[in-house]
Amino acid sequence: MQIKEVYNLVKDGLTGVDEQFRLLARSQSENFPELHEMLSHILSGRGKAVRPLLALHAGSLYHYDLKKIIYMATASEVMHIATLVHDDAIDKASVRRGQLTISKIWGIDKAIIFGDYLFAKAAEYAVDTGSLRVVRLFAQTLEAISCGELKQGFSAFNLEQSYDQYIERVTGKTASLFALSTKGGAILSDAPEESVQILSEYGLNLGISFQVVDDIFDLIGTEQELGKPVGSDLAQGTITLPTLMLLERYPEDNPVKRIFKNEGDREKNIKEVIEMVRNSQIVDECYRVASDYSTRASHNLHRLPDTPSRQALYTMAEYVVKRKK
Amino acid sequence: MQIKEVYNLVKDGLTGVDEQFRLLARSQSENFPELHEMLSHILSGRGKAVRPLLALHAGSLYHYDLKKIIYMATASEVMHIATLVHDDAIDKASVRRGQLTISKIWGIDKAIIFGDYLFAKAAEYAVDTGSLRVVRLFAQTLEAISCGELKQGFSAFNLEQSYDQYIERVTGKTASLFALSTKGGAILSDAPEESVQILSEYGLNLGISFQVVDDIFDLIGTEQELGKPVGSDLAQGTITLPTLMLLERYPEDNPVKRIFKNEGDREKNIKEVIEMVRNSQIVDECYRVASDYSTRASHNLHRLPDTPSRQALYTMAEYVVKRKK
Repeated sequence: MQIKEVYNLVKDGLTGVDEQFRLLARSQSENFPELHEMLSHILSGRGKAVRPLLALHAGSLYHYDLKKIIYMATASEVMHIATLVHDDAIDKASVRRGQLTISKIWGIDKAIIFGDYLFAKAAEYAVDTGSLRVVRLFAQTLEAISCGELKQGFSAFNLEQSYDQYIERVTGKTASLFALSTKGGAILSDAPEESVQILSEYGLNLGISFQVVDDIFDLIGTEQELGKPVGSDLAQGTITLPTLMLLERYPEDNPVKRIFKNEGDREKNIKEVIEMVRNSQIVDECYRVASDYSTRASHNLHRLPDTPSRQALYTMAEYVVKRKK
Repeated sequence: MQIKEVYNLVKDGLTGVDEQFRLLARSQSENFPELHEMLSHILSGRGKAVRPLLALHAGSLYHYDLKKIIYMATASEVMHIATLVHDDAIDKASVRRGQLTISKIWGIDKAIIFGDYLFAKAAEYAVDTGSLRVVRLFAQTLEAISCGELKQGFSAFNLEQSYDQYIERVTGKTASLFALSTKGGAILSDAPEESVQILSEYGLNLGISFQVVDDIFDLIGTEQELGKPVGSDLAQGTITLPTLMLLERYPEDNPVKRIFKNEGDREKNIKEVIEMVRNSQIVDECYRVASDYSTRASHNLHRLPDTPSRQALYTMAEYVVKRKK
């Protein structure tokens, strides 16, 4: 299956999510024009809609009410955007998806509150699914995401980090929301408990794979491809899989160490890290890790009903490690 | 009824809330000690538990399951604390309730994420009530709070503000959470719709009254009474009722104007505002406004069942304008 077909199969659902986003972007224009402007800005720069796609396919395998799955998909994407708004405020990032961040335009203070506003909207969409179990999952996922982010914060500029800690952080900050999308879709379509579990694990493994690939891109991508500066993780003191491997290979003099210890020219050190990663087997090894998680994601899909959406989930797992941005 | 009796009447409920807080403060000690420390710190400096008190009394008027009301009360207090953590990060406040703020100890970045973590926990307690309607109210309340805070942010250092705008902001940022506590309690005890409405309006009016009194304290209290510096609203560029009245009375040369335009010595200007407010009828007038909202709060309580908790709600409405801190 082509990736285009993955989108095409759930185009009614995606149109429904778009409609929700349009309504949200149009809201507040009369009673609170400044908030309206923030909403239109953040919703104009939509991403690849991976989380809605996951919710829509996972929610299409059994008996579903499309409206509820659309609320689920919208909720997961709005929650994702809310976390990005707070991330960018923390990282003092200027650009995301090729456009200025909320904190860059409106300042960090308003970005904090606007992120809270988006969490509230996400919770409202979650409630619209009508399932208390799904709402609980949402709350637990926000808990997992903030734990992951907090762990990242507490371990920033710390050179003593293990592979397990990296995977744990990535699971919290990224994979938990992927798992929410697939598990939530499954619950809302009355999937049997075994399938709910399979789809939850699919999302979790896919999310880890996705984040590992993102972490490779952060180092070897171009600013244009990324829509943000290259090496921004390093600049934040965040160790990702490629830099972890680089530290293991060159435990003595290492540009990552110099960056974290604030020794020498920062820009030059970052360039050196990128060069070293590019000229080593590290990229290939990281892709192998990503590939491994992607394989684990698909491992139990054969136990789900044989439908086009199941095929779409296989395709997404393959695509995650093949994609170019 | 004495205020002590208001607490005493729902002491089982308050003990239940304390128990939830103790569990939360003790959590994470093994797998994430830094988070555990943040939790114990924030939960050691508890306030007057006004929101739990409201939820417990509003929830005691009809047929209730104490466990559910305790979850409701805990959720509203945790949500309140989460908003304070973000407020303090935004205001760069060092001290709250006489102890250092999260952002002062751990920095603004971690305070943002920790606030998100607390929102997640609040949502989980809300889900524990088992009522989707209550969870929806929670989400809508967080939306109202963030709108109120955003409006405050967008109007900071703006001298052209009306009484209506002040009341609107206060309704969003404070009264909505009071209303959530009372309305949520009512819903969970299967109160008839008319009573749900009466208790919601009670909370809303009480919340406005409470905030007006807080805004008076911010100017005429001592640092020790407040647990934070005097005049902190002014320093943030926030116009409150007393300063609004001062601007109306002295439209020409006015220390509030000088503070907002950054003219002259800031400390001296703040002192001048405090002196002018103290030496005028403004404090009395503000108390009249607070008293008016407190009267409105109690206005329809006679239509509720004649129980000790109803009397407690009357007492709280009186106490809000009589309290000394």
